[in-house]
Amino acid sequence: MFKSEKLAQNIRQMIENGAWKAHDKLPSLREQTELSGYSLMTVLNAYQVLESQGLVYAKDKSGYYIAERPQTYNSKEPAVQIGLNSKIKINSVVFNYLKSLQTPNIAPFGSAFPNAELLYNSRFMQILAQHSKRKSSYSHQNHMPPGNQELRQLIANRYQLQGINCTSDDIVITSGALEALNLSLQALTQPGDFILLQQTIFYGAWQAAERLGLQVITIPEHSQFGFDLESFEQALKQYPIKVCWLMLNVHNPIGFTVNSEIKQRIAELLNEYQVYLIEDDVYQELNYGAHKPVSVKYFDQHQRVLHCSSFSKTLGMGARVGWVFAGPFSDAIQHLQLMSTLTVSPLLQNALVDFLSHHHYEKHLRHLRQQLEKYKQKFYQELKSRLDSVCEIYYYSSGYFLWIKLPEQLDGQVLYEQLIQQNIAIAPALLFKPEHTSQNYIRLNCSFDWTSEIENVVDVLAKVILNHAKSVD
Amino acid sequence: MFKSEKLAQNIRQMIENGAWKAHDKLPSLREQTELSGYSLMTVLNAYQVLESQGLVYAKDKSGYYIAERPQTYNSKEPAVQIGLNSKIKINSVVFNYLKSLQTPNIAPFGSAFPNAELLYNSRFMQILAQHSKRKSSYSHQNHMPPGNQELRQLIANRYQLQGINCTSDDIVITSGALEALNLSLQALTQPGDFILLQQTIFYGAWQAAERLGLQVITIPEHSQFGFDLESFEQALKQYPIKVCWLMLNVHNPIGFTVNSEIKQRIAELLNEYQVYLIEDDVYQELNYGAHKPVSVKYFDQHQRVLHCSSFSKTLGMGARVGWVFAGPFSDAIQHLQLMSTLTVSPLLQNALVDFLSHHHYEKHLRHLRQQLEKYKQKFYQELKSRLDSVCEIYYYSSGYFLWIKLPEQLDGQVLYEQLIQQNIAIAPALLFKPEHTSQNYIRLNCSFDWTSEIENVVDVLAKVILNHAKSVD
Repeated sequence: MFKSEKLAQNIRQMIENGAWKAHDKLPSLREQTELSGYSLMTVLNAYQVLESQGLVYAKDKSGYYIAERPQTYNSKEPAVQIGLNSKIKINSVVFNYLKSLQTPNIAPFGSAFPNAELLYNSRFMQILAQHSKRKSSYSHQNHMPPGNQELRQLIANRYQLQGINCTSDDIVITSGALEALNLSLQALTQPGDFILLQQTIFYGAWQAAERLGLQVITIPEHSQFGFDLESFEQALKQYPIKVCWLMLNVHNPIGFTVNSEIKQRIAELLNEYQVYLIEDDVYQELNYGAHKPVSVKYFDQHQRVLHCSSFSKTLGMGARVGWVFAGPFSDAIQHLQLMSTLTVSPLLQNALVDFLSHHHYEKHLRHLRQQLEKYKQKFYQELKSRLDSVCEIYYYSSGYFLWIKLPEQLDGQVLYEQLIQQNIAIAPALLFKPEHTSQNYIRLNCSFDWTSEIENVVDVLAKVILNHAKSVD
Repeated sequence: MFKSEKLAQNIRQMIENGAWKAHDKLPSLREQTELSGYSLMTVLNAYQVLESQGLVYAKDKSGYYIAERPQTYNSKEPAVQIGLNSKIKINSVVFNYLKSLQTPNIAPFGSAFPNAELLYNSRFMQILAQHSKRKSSYSHQNHMPPGNQELRQLIANRYQLQGINCTSDDIVITSGALEALNLSLQALTQPGDFILLQQTIFYGAWQAAERLGLQVITIPEHSQFGFDLESFEQALKQYPIKVCWLMLNVHNPIGFTVNSEIKQRIAELLNEYQVYLIEDDVYQELNYGAHKPVSVKYFDQHQRVLHCSSFSKTLGMGARVGWVFAGPFSDAIQHLQLMSTLTVSPLLQNALVDFLSHHHYEKHLRHLRQQLEKYKQKFYQELKSRLDSVCEIYYYSSGYFLWIKLPEQLDGQVLYEQLIQQNIAIAPALLFKPEHTSQNYIRLNCSFDWTSEIENVVDVLAKVILNHAKSVD
């Protein structure tokens, strides 16, 4: 935690305890420095945080005063549900986790990527090989930001097919979705700004917040609908949130897909509260149903949504090309891109143009979805038969993750550390909700054929969990 | 300029004018706020800048006082030569320049990349095509940071051949040199830190400083040796510099290569002043001589140099893979990489392993150097015969740039804007020394065969310059 946040928290507590009344004067900066032992800068930051939260107000050159306590702050419920995390420290956890996945011969249930076997597409590989021999694939001309014009047009067409107005100028090609998400957040925020995340979300969001020095407000998941509109609106009311980063389709790690009504309402609220949304939609194509779910972007009348996705989750790391539907922020994002990665492989962009324009992609996706559904269903049944007495397993008709609630006393991180000793990788809850107390969850990658080898690994996994459950009884 | 830097400058001037004597008390923060109309934060920042420059000192809780004036600050010369640029705003200039290069059919004398024709290597293209068909090229396993183990070993071997101790663990593979440079700078600095740049340098350094909110100290070029050791040591003495970012081989844009004695002394000074060096050595292979010049890294006994290079300037954008010899900073850089680009194309890394281990690279480099020398010499002669009366043209036996000093009154940016109307791109001085007054320079990319088409373009270019010179006479 920042020192300033710690000080702000102390003062906040004193306000709540009634140590000060509305319009009381806070100690001057200099006095507070002497009282608290913190530096002048720290004190100033703490006061500014409190000011931004509406708890104190500054009077021109005379100092800071206690504000009238707003209704919302008095009500206990949202204060419990909505979290403020001013200093995130998740990067080392993620680093060690990703490193452990690289252990040779490890059972890759922890991986964020689908089984590479399923992503290979011989047509794409052939096309890539052909383009590898063409000189045009090595020219940087026309492959600077915003990226290959034809590829942007093909991506725009896919939005159009979903009924979303989009031209090639709206699209910026990126090095995978991670760059799209990071550049979007960087374009929209300054250090110290408030952003809103789901309480449980892809760790990349936490890392980005850490890197950019942002204050994170979290809202809990809704047990039935996935997304809790009430908490969302509450948070928008209560905090000066600039940007939300949400995952509403095939949520990572939980797996739910939020319904259209809620998405439409989110779009309305974004406009009402003048907030931007970075919509992480990398799994949009992995819904098992006949129709790909719509995004909030679909309802976005006021250019408040930056929609990010990629080909890496469907064609693999060999096609690590992502994009952001940036609209009016295209220029800002290109500026940032020029300062960092500069450009995306012309070869890959050319190959994707060829692959997409010959309609190979839809066929690939159909096959991929079928396989993922088959594999995940099998995993679900097998895990349920072994763990039903002690675990809750969340199954959704999409993607390749199962989100598993372990026995209350079993921390996902503890299980992770134990299993890694036996060469089995899982993804512990800590990666996705670092600031939350309920850590008895894990994410399991189920994009594998049910071989006897896999069965043996699942047996070990189940045994370890059951032993833990027993030892507590 | 930051408001705080403006205020600091005003106060600095008052100190120089003798408005205050040593140990005089500065106005308190609150008083200064009222006097100057700036915010408390701005005043505090200004005082801290002055403190970091040794011009004032803080006394525990009582305020800021004027320091004894150091000898170095009294001497007029270095104050003129060494520049402080606390707020860089170059990114839009670079953006517009790079965009203009994408105009169809433009004469690409402005490009930073060698003529793509010279970089094509049919062996590499074949190898890439072969790997495109292999499944192993699509697995992300073992291609997470720090990158492919074999490729890192091959790069380490190349350092070893130069007599530099290096193991594969020292190397981190990146998406081109730009990522290597940016991640290195990010790993070593905090916003507000002082870094040292050459007064004229690759614009990527200015952009990185802008993005990371750093204060930039610049030292002038030495007219004979390229690098001015005296100014360098002066700057290290005078400012609390944390990191230097220097280009000493085949300097971009000027072209010089600094001799070994100076490099050795730089390494000594880094250690003496406990400063880190980010050594941008992307053109290290493009020296025409039989031996590749050594780097400061060669003399680095104390792990103070992070050496960055890449394959993109020798094999083209199709092989956009770079690296940093990060040594003890490997972990920190990998952490940052996991938060941004995540990984570098496994396909490209595999193909490079194959290409390098079969010794195709040396042959390619020999041919490339020969061609570049031939082309650049021809350009030099042709330009000299046209412009000798009004321009100075700097020729160095390396790379593919000519650095041209225009007539005194002709701003490079003005020439750039005029030529772009005629579909000719050049790189104006503003890109490389945005904070300096002498803007009558341009960089010309000469990596082209002297065809009649090229000759026509050079004729136009020369005519425009001569017209300018005449109009002033």
